[in-house]
Amino acid sequence: MNRFASAAIAALLVFLCSTSHADEGMWTFHGFPFSKANAALKTSLDQAWLDRVRSATVRLSNCTASFVSDEGLILTNHHCVEACLAEQSSKEKSYVEDGFLAKSREEEKKCQTQVADVLVGMEEITAKISAVTAGKDEAAANDVRKATLTQLEGECEAQTKQKCQSVTLYNGGQYWLYKYKRYTDVRLVFAPEVSIAAFGGDPDNFQFPRWCLDMGLLRAYEDGKPAKPAAFLKVNFAGPAAGEAVFVSGHPGATDRLLTLAQLKQQRNLDLPQWLLRYSEIRGRLIQFSESSPENERITADTLNSLENGIKVRRKMLDALHEDTLLDRKAAEQATLEKNIAKDAALKKSTGNPWGDIDKALAAERGLFLPYTYIENGAGFQGRLVNYARTLVRGTAERDKPNGQRYREFTDGALPRVQQNLGASVPVYTELEEIRLGNGLERMREWLGPDHAVVRKLMSTESPAALAKRLVRETKLADPAVRLELWKGGSAAIAASTDPMIMLARSIDADARAVRKSYEDTVEAPLRSATERIARARFATLGTSVYPDATFTLRLNYGTVQGWNENGTPVEPFTRLSRAFDRATGADPFRIPDSWQRVKSKLDMNTPFNLSTNNDIVGGNSGSPLINAKGEIVGLLFDGNIHSVSGAYWFDTAKNRAVAVHPAIIKEALSKVYSADAVLAELTR
Amino acid sequence: MNRFASAAIAALLVFLCSTSHADEGMWTFHGFPFSKANAALKTSLDQAWLDRVRSATVRLSNCTASFVSDEGLILTNHHCVEACLAEQSSKEKSYVEDGFLAKSREEEKKCQTQVADVLVGMEEITAKISAVTAGKDEAAANDVRKATLTQLEGECEAQTKQKCQSVTLYNGGQYWLYKYKRYTDVRLVFAPEVSIAAFGGDPDNFQFPRWCLDMGLLRAYEDGKPAKPAAFLKVNFAGPAAGEAVFVSGHPGATDRLLTLAQLKQQRNLDLPQWLLRYSEIRGRLIQFSESSPENERITADTLNSLENGIKVRRKMLDALHEDTLLDRKAAEQATLEKNIAKDAALKKSTGNPWGDIDKALAAERGLFLPYTYIENGAGFQGRLVNYARTLVRGTAERDKPNGQRYREFTDGALPRVQQNLGASVPVYTELEEIRLGNGLERMREWLGPDHAVVRKLMSTESPAALAKRLVRETKLADPAVRLELWKGGSAAIAASTDPMIMLARSIDADARAVRKSYEDTVEAPLRSATERIARARFATLGTSVYPDATFTLRLNYGTVQGWNENGTPVEPFTRLSRAFDRATGADPFRIPDSWQRVKSKLDMNTPFNLSTNNDIVGGNSGSPLINAKGEIVGLLFDGNIHSVSGAYWFDTAKNRAVAVHPAIIKEALSKVYSADAVLAELTR
Repeated sequence: MNRFASAAIAALLVFLCSTSHADEGMWTFHGFPFSKANAALKTSLDQAWLDRVRSATVRLSNCTASFVSDEGLILTNHHCVEACLAEQSSKEKSYVEDGFLAKSREEEKKCQTQVADVLVGMEEITAKISAVTAGKDEAAANDVRKATLTQLEGECEAQTKQKCQSVTLYNGGQYWLYKYKRYTDVRLVFAPEVSIAAFGGDPDNFQFPRWCLDMGLLRAYEDGKPAKPAAFLKVNFAGPAAGEAVFVSGHPGATDRLLTLAQLKQQRNLDLPQWLLRYSEIRGRLIQFSESSPENERITADTLNSLENGIKVRRKMLDALHEDTLLDRKAAEQATLEKNIAKDAALKKSTGNPWGDIDKALAAERGLFLPYTYIENGAGFQGRLVNYARTLVRGTAERDKPNGQRYREFTDGALPRVQQNLGASVPVYTELEEIRLGNGLERMREWLGPDHAVVRKLMSTESPAALAKRLVRETKLADPAVRLELWKGGSAAIAASTDPMIMLARSIDADARAVRKSYEDTVEAPLRSATERIARARFATLGTSVYPDATFTLRLNYGTVQGWNENGTPVEPFTRLSRAFDRATGADPFRIPDSWQRVKSKLDMNTPFNLSTNNDIVGGNSGSPLINAKGEIVGLLFDGNIHSVSGAYWFDTAKNRAVAVHPAIIKEALSKVYSADAVLAELTR
Repeated sequence: MNRFASAAIAALLVFLCSTSHADEGMWTFHGFPFSKANAALKTSLDQAWLDRVRSATVRLSNCTASFVSDEGLILTNHHCVEACLAEQSSKEKSYVEDGFLAKSREEEKKCQTQVADVLVGMEEITAKISAVTAGKDEAAANDVRKATLTQLEGECEAQTKQKCQSVTLYNGGQYWLYKYKRYTDVRLVFAPEVSIAAFGGDPDNFQFPRWCLDMGLLRAYEDGKPAKPAAFLKVNFAGPAAGEAVFVSGHPGATDRLLTLAQLKQQRNLDLPQWLLRYSEIRGRLIQFSESSPENERITADTLNSLENGIKVRRKMLDALHEDTLLDRKAAEQATLEKNIAKDAALKKSTGNPWGDIDKALAAERGLFLPYTYIENGAGFQGRLVNYARTLVRGTAERDKPNGQRYREFTDGALPRVQQNLGASVPVYTELEEIRLGNGLERMREWLGPDHAVVRKLMSTESPAALAKRLVRETKLADPAVRLELWKGGSAAIAASTDPMIMLARSIDADARAVRKSYEDTVEAPLRSATERIARARFATLGTSVYPDATFTLRLNYGTVQGWNENGTPVEPFTRLSRAFDRATGADPFRIPDSWQRVKSKLDMNTPFNLSTNNDIVGGNSGSPLINAKGEIVGLLFDGNIHSVSGAYWFDTAKNRAVAVHPAIIKEALSKVYSADAVLAELTR
């Protein structure tokens, strides 16, 4: 991996001591530090172990999962299948609330917007990207970089018949093509009631000790039959011992550990507070709506759960960025890097002044932030229906262009998923749509101001709420057939449409494209150029033995089962079933469902429920298998403790802990509560 | 005023040049810089002018106002009388929406929770406070300081028969007794519809250009008859010229210009984000509730308006604290002060290390922040009913103690207002109470955690929403007679009460007192000691020619009528009526009421509507008279522009502008729209 000659080994060692720790690291499968990990854990992991784990690890659209049988059975979290449960539900019947068990293969329900990917190949393409961008100005380089990524993906797909996606690592320090086997037919097998899957709800979220059966089972199908995966992992229901070596194979979504100090301050001052303000208000609206009737509660639950999760994550991220220690450490790291660059005249010349360039790009971002956020990025246009409309308007226009000239979300490689989502028969609730669109429009007017051209265009005679209500009530886009007809009709059908939501999307598309163009040229392009140069300088002075930031691509990390010390109080790494009953209040979210209460006397109250480890994980890792050195599943990762949230920016060895469902409670529940005998047999054979 | 010898005149001049500007300053009436102001504005203000203005300026419970006739007529803002309008309203009839005009004295409606104070005397008591606190440790000094303030207030009231309130200036650098003539019978005379009073609503709030008739008229009564004030100000309906010298006499609520860097960071990192998160969610709940029916909209309007104002203020304050320039300047000022202190051995010794002490106190505050905020400070207990209950429980217990040993909000001097509020016959809306209390309890559980002792005590079997609903439905405290009976029954009646809201308040009072005690001893006491020492060091090195932070006590500031330059575009200081009609959309909050539409053809479209000046104002100044050098009212202050919000921390000479209603539109509206002939006659005679 050490493609860039290491100029300063001494500096490297100092750097690693100050910023990297034994258990830290979201390692790529092409850069896993076998010797370091085996030495630290006294294990003997090898390439075969890694290949098998890779082949059994599944990427869902929103989560991680793993194959757990040779008939395509997939283990993941309840909160990873919650959207699928909600898509099957209605105002009258909620599978989120009630749970689901397919008694037979025939009863397994298709998750219409889900896919399952398995990583089968990885190819570095950094040199190809460097070759095409060399000598170009930032905006031109940005355009040709994207076009080349699109072209390479297309060639790869044509050649391999796999799903090919480019990956940007180290903020542009490396580019890769990742190749996936994709399953597009994914069905729901089992999910418990949300009240036990997310026992403790939002108050307990990101907390430990914890008592959540946050599990769900899916099955991948191929040609209408259960898939035969290349590998699967056996569940070891005994679980791990305290102190045992454990590995998390999964797809951490995003971390910002390589951001510069100025970029972190921008998150602290702008992105995070703005997001939190917006979504705290929406949270209030949804709670108020959900409390007005049981039906409303039912249709809001899924949205509210994921929104509250997002709020909790971001407010702890904001807290982390308010820690002077974090920013001081980032400043010191940056100063060290600058000093090391200064020692090497050639490196100094090729690096230029990326931090100054970043300052300029961030100033441009501050200027564009509100129109970009509200108009292009959709904060003003919330809800399913308006997003269908925007996808149809934008997507049909893009489809008319050559592949390489399109926005990256509408390349040939991306179109099948676009069509899958447009055609999915999922419920659309009028009231929720009105709330979300009305709120978005109202806040757009507040933040852009009533005299902004787009605001005047949309709301010169109607209030935001009245406009939202009219659009939602009159559009026909809730019907997947209508959407697919427009999609197939292409830009001509869109131009001819009199659907009011399509008309809205049409009327603002040019404004949105214009602000996106400014953003790409004055923010994205210079930032990418600057962070690429910083990454190259880091490689040159530190080597590549530092892991890249998380990018929702496959990573492995290692750790051990352990608790931590919370302000002098030791936190044990295992919880037991009995305490869940002690803690129950009878009222959501501290309600143990009737299915458990009915068999309470038969349950072994000593059963381990959840456990904590010091693996380095982040959102996107949800559903990851926790694997022992033998390659068995000894836990189902579903969360981190509260200190894990600052993992977005650094890894706090002392307190950052991952949280997993213990396999013993899975067995106890499947056998005694849910009588899921066939599933259990499949898991244990 | 220069009680402390000025050690460094040179340093003073440098300091003033870098931090003070011609138009900046919220000057006390005992420290007004006549010569500086007269020189800057070419005016000839003297003590007689100042005394007359003081005698005509009124402090309401929430705002400023002024006497405008010899029969006690009071001019203030619509948003200052909005609570009174709401108190007169019901689900069926909203005076906020419809406005109000008393056709005769008999129709004037009493504002039950309002008072009107006129400042009649000021006496410095710094030496008395210094004498009793000398040699005591911080916590003991804090206790004796409060007890002494209570005692001095009591003696003053007994002696003068006026309302006596102590005032802490310069964060403890000076203590004063302010003496007020208090009117407790204040009645509503006139208010326009909120749609024209707050035209543009929240989107236009803190914006200029602007078109708001944000006016209201009250009348003070004494012994059942219109009061005869010692002075009143005539309205000059022609208004001021551009560039004319203007003065704002009023009660700016609070500024934080003297806070240390560490205190500002605490606001940025903790207080402001926490508040904004809480209230953004409540905003969402109230909007959702208000949109569900016209009745709900009616009963929510007043609360929502003031909440949205609070959100806008705080998010702009947070923006200001994210400006590196602001914090850098504060750091530089602090460094200069430290350097000047270091030059004087005696001063160095007496000052100690206040910044280090502040760091420790702020660390203690961070530790106590959540329990203090949620339990004692009421974030967990929102709504009228629970606050009545807490006041009754706390107040009756405090009343049993000697005056000097009570919490300061229950001293003999404070009790009449407590009883006035408890006995006020104001509407209590069950649904709003349920929302606010339920939300408070839910967030208390989220932030303190489900295992916190107070949370377990209240919510071990009920959800926050269910508990709130039960308490609100079963309590009898909505009835003022019930409240007064408990108040008169005292602590024995409270102990015997089985009202569930009283029981709740009783059950948490000891917890709340305990956290308050910790807060007072470990946060408030050391902070007060440290800021007193900083203030003394500032006086010693800079003199007292710097104005103190705003404290909702009477101040005068001077400026001129002017616009500003917004990113290269000049903003003119006057708006005209015609543009309001151009901007109207027909939908709230951009709806011009029917009363204006009906007489549109008769209105002079060229009438000046609002104007901007560079006076230094802040919330609490609302309703202040804008006065010319002759002592006439030439505007009614109601807002600032968006740049004025950062006035909490510094005065931005280039862009900070105050916004006022022009007297011409007042006359135009009273005569042509509202036919308020008697009122207009009283104003013009």
